[in-house]
Amino acid sequence: MATEAAADDVSDTYEQFLAKVKRISNIGNARGVLSWDQEVMMPEDGTPARSQQLSALSAVSHELLTDDEMGEYLDELEAADLSDEQAAVVREVRREYDRATQVSTELVEEISRTTSEALPKWEKAKEEDDFSVFAPVLEDLVELKREYAEQIDPDADPYAVLFAEYEPYLDLETAEETLTRLREELVPLIDDIRESDADLAFDAFDGEFDIDTQEELARDVLDTLGYDWDRGRLDTAPHPFSTGTQYDARVTTRFDESDALGALTSTVHEFGHATYTLGLPDEDYATPLGESRDLTVHESQSRLWENHVGRSEAFWERFLPVMKERFPQIDDVTPQEACEAANEVYEDNLIRVEADELTYHMHIVIRFEIERELIEGELDVEDVPEVWNDKYEQYLGIRPETDAEGCLQDIHWSHGSFGYFPTYSLGSVLAAQLYANAEDDIDDLEGKIREGEFGPLHDWLTENVHRHGSRYTTPDLIEAATGEGFTADYFLDYVTEKYTDLYELE
Amino acid sequence: MATEAAADDVSDTYEQFLAKVKRISNIGNARGVLSWDQEVMMPEDGTPARSQQLSALSAVSHELLTDDEMGEYLDELEAADLSDEQAAVVREVRREYDRATQVSTELVEEISRTTSEALPKWEKAKEEDDFSVFAPVLEDLVELKREYAEQIDPDADPYAVLFAEYEPYLDLETAEETLTRLREELVPLIDDIRESDADLAFDAFDGEFDIDTQEELARDVLDTLGYDWDRGRLDTAPHPFSTGTQYDARVTTRFDESDALGALTSTVHEFGHATYTLGLPDEDYATPLGESRDLTVHESQSRLWENHVGRSEAFWERFLPVMKERFPQIDDVTPQEACEAANEVYEDNLIRVEADELTYHMHIVIRFEIERELIEGELDVEDVPEVWNDKYEQYLGIRPETDAEGCLQDIHWSHGSFGYFPTYSLGSVLAAQLYANAEDDIDDLEGKIREGEFGPLHDWLTENVHRHGSRYTTPDLIEAATGEGFTADYFLDYVTEKYTDLYELE
Repeated sequence: MATEAAADDVSDTYEQFLAKVKRISNIGNARGVLSWDQEVMMPEDGTPARSQQLSALSAVSHELLTDDEMGEYLDELEAADLSDEQAAVVREVRREYDRATQVSTELVEEISRTTSEALPKWEKAKEEDDFSVFAPVLEDLVELKREYAEQIDPDADPYAVLFAEYEPYLDLETAEETLTRLREELVPLIDDIRESDADLAFDAFDGEFDIDTQEELARDVLDTLGYDWDRGRLDTAPHPFSTGTQYDARVTTRFDESDALGALTSTVHEFGHATYTLGLPDEDYATPLGESRDLTVHESQSRLWENHVGRSEAFWERFLPVMKERFPQIDDVTPQEACEAANEVYEDNLIRVEADELTYHMHIVIRFEIERELIEGELDVEDVPEVWNDKYEQYLGIRPETDAEGCLQDIHWSHGSFGYFPTYSLGSVLAAQLYANAEDDIDDLEGKIREGEFGPLHDWLTENVHRHGSRYTTPDLIEAATGEGFTADYFLDYVTEKYTDLYELE
Repeated sequence: MATEAAADDVSDTYEQFLAKVKRISNIGNARGVLSWDQEVMMPEDGTPARSQQLSALSAVSHELLTDDEMGEYLDELEAADLSDEQAAVVREVRREYDRATQVSTELVEEISRTTSEALPKWEKAKEEDDFSVFAPVLEDLVELKREYAEQIDPDADPYAVLFAEYEPYLDLETAEETLTRLREELVPLIDDIRESDADLAFDAFDGEFDIDTQEELARDVLDTLGYDWDRGRLDTAPHPFSTGTQYDARVTTRFDESDALGALTSTVHEFGHATYTLGLPDEDYATPLGESRDLTVHESQSRLWENHVGRSEAFWERFLPVMKERFPQIDDVTPQEACEAANEVYEDNLIRVEADELTYHMHIVIRFEIERELIEGELDVEDVPEVWNDKYEQYLGIRPETDAEGCLQDIHWSHGSFGYFPTYSLGSVLAAQLYANAEDDIDDLEGKIREGEFGPLHDWLTENVHRHGSRYTTPDLIEAATGEGFTADYFLDYVTEKYTDLYELE
């Protein structure tokens, strides 16, 4: 009887705790809607009000997360006998609680103020190609984020602490090993490609493509892949993103008259993110069990659809006829040519977001190396442009002529987001590992893609990744899905085979 | 010195109080964005998540409004020496605080639950034309709202308490006197119109009007009237509404291929609401000084633009050429004919939202009389359909053949919104009073409208109404703007003169 009574108490505590967790999560999701609206719908002058609305919701949610009651719930529940699901929820909330309580309110506010100032300075510096406009506030941000890491864990590598903000369960060593391996193995492959004289159809999609028709084509590709329009939307945004919950996961993209392929690729990428969100279990909405794992896993889903599906010849066999209906101007292009164009490795691209599947990771390696040294105090902000340019020359054989197309190209540092970039590469690597396993499990996956049957792949991903939400840590999720730990083997095999073949390297 | 120290204390308390008020208001404005999105953008299956987001924000904001701290701030500030502006803020928050604390959480939750159930039942009842589907839950709602009124003020007329939810400062006697006067004076006028044999161009806009072109025309009319697109948007919604803040006040409308005039009228109406919101002072955003007065004043602004501007011949002289550019099919229509069509008094319209400027008020009178008797226990829910139909026969000379086009037509009761309808008529009446004053103050207002100069009217309304936010109570605002109390004289003069002339009654 005593045990039952105790179990009832725990059950009551857990219910109260969960109600609070849901409230916090719902406030976060409300913020998500406001942010989507700000990017996609809000009229130009709406910013002052929107900023105050967002910060009111942040403040309320921070207070709910860090109050004494939450601390007591966590202490009590951690000492209790919980189900696996309950323990997972407690684990995830504990992590957020610890981070939120370890950092002083003053520091959080100062970071928030400084990033607000940093954004327009970064924009101005980029526009005027003048790093000195951004440098002082970047110095402040480096300093503040170093202090932020220090408050969370004074004994840890500060960059590791920041990295854990975006990828809490794959440690920095894994990231570093992976990025080093990518650098070591991709640089020679890219060199070989550069020397290849294969005659590929990189001009297959040259020309002008009407924007309205491109938008219809973006809807076509989402239809083809099986996007659930009852739980989603497609809109245009200057920086494409996807956001939402399992009930409402929206996609944005952007269009460029001279780059129809770019809009398609970006749409398929965001579809991958949305399809993860849509695969989360309805019944666990607004709890960690119904919320996605962190950035690595999210990026694995977008990259899987973008690269393994969207850049495959099977996909182009299916989709090219649809594209030709919209754009008769490409009537002569064959699926193989479309696939060649979609897989061009650029010889002189300086811009990360326009990079191909291979050189992309060199962009990430460069940012990783630089921001790590910045945070660890081994590199001064004023030296960033030169180090940046040297690394581009070393890893990619090209040297930016301006900082605007060099170290000022990305927005992330103006947000104070140090430690974010590595998850882009880790996600691509994980995509290959998951895709290889899906190929093993699904009979003739390539043939199915050629026939437009995306259901089996979708189901495999939902079964092995999406439906678990944050129940498992990232390593446990990967282990459960693939039977082994995180590894770059599959990614390197995949790109080596694919590009050796495409560029006729042997 | 002691006085200065005390003043500093008050000043500190006021600042803390105001920060809290702003936070509550920002959460409310965030809810506004979520609701707009739900009506206009949200995919079909998004409801379960959206409902939880909205109710999390409601709960948080209710808790902030009703906590002990807020009670202490109010008590301290009411005893202090405040500026007029500060006192106005305290007055408005006190009113909300009292209402929110007087009603038990259980009752609020039960009303919320019951209205959630009521909405689909009302929809089903309307669709199947079966009042008995809606009747039981309507009975519950009447009972619950009666108890709600009782908890707020057990000694007051319960309907007066409910009415004050929507119009806190013009009392129920004013509403009743006004509605009675409208009924007494409009019924004979409508009778005369019915017997008139004036040959008016009611068919001027007959025909089919392409929806996309109508949408462009709606943008034209907003351009013509001077809508600030940097702080607004136009979208489509099944039930047109406007929402937002001074930084972002959005308009919705709806289109019907066979009713171009309806979409225009509804767009101009919502423009009126938005222009009020946009005239609120930026610097007082998220406080009562930067928030609109209640429903009567809001409706006065929409009605002023819809009726006094949008149904005037001067407006049609200006706007008809714009409309003809979009729709060459109406090339033969004259401004006078357009104006006649826009002012048709319908002989057999049963539907409030499709009513003209005169019979509209009979629709309101009928709902007012019925809901008042319901709340006061003098009418049983089961008798509503018959009483409804009798009143339509008595006041409008028509009898609904079904409940779907009778007592089930409006959504309001399913929301538990008893006491809302009268503000529609009060708003129209106030519109006439304000417009008459604007005409006195602005040299040749009619001529200016004919020339498309809407700035002076806009400025007059901002100066006399919008910029004050909720600084004054409604009667004080009306007194300040017009030099006298609320009166239906102007409205009755306006409609009598206008329709006597139009229908050649004498």
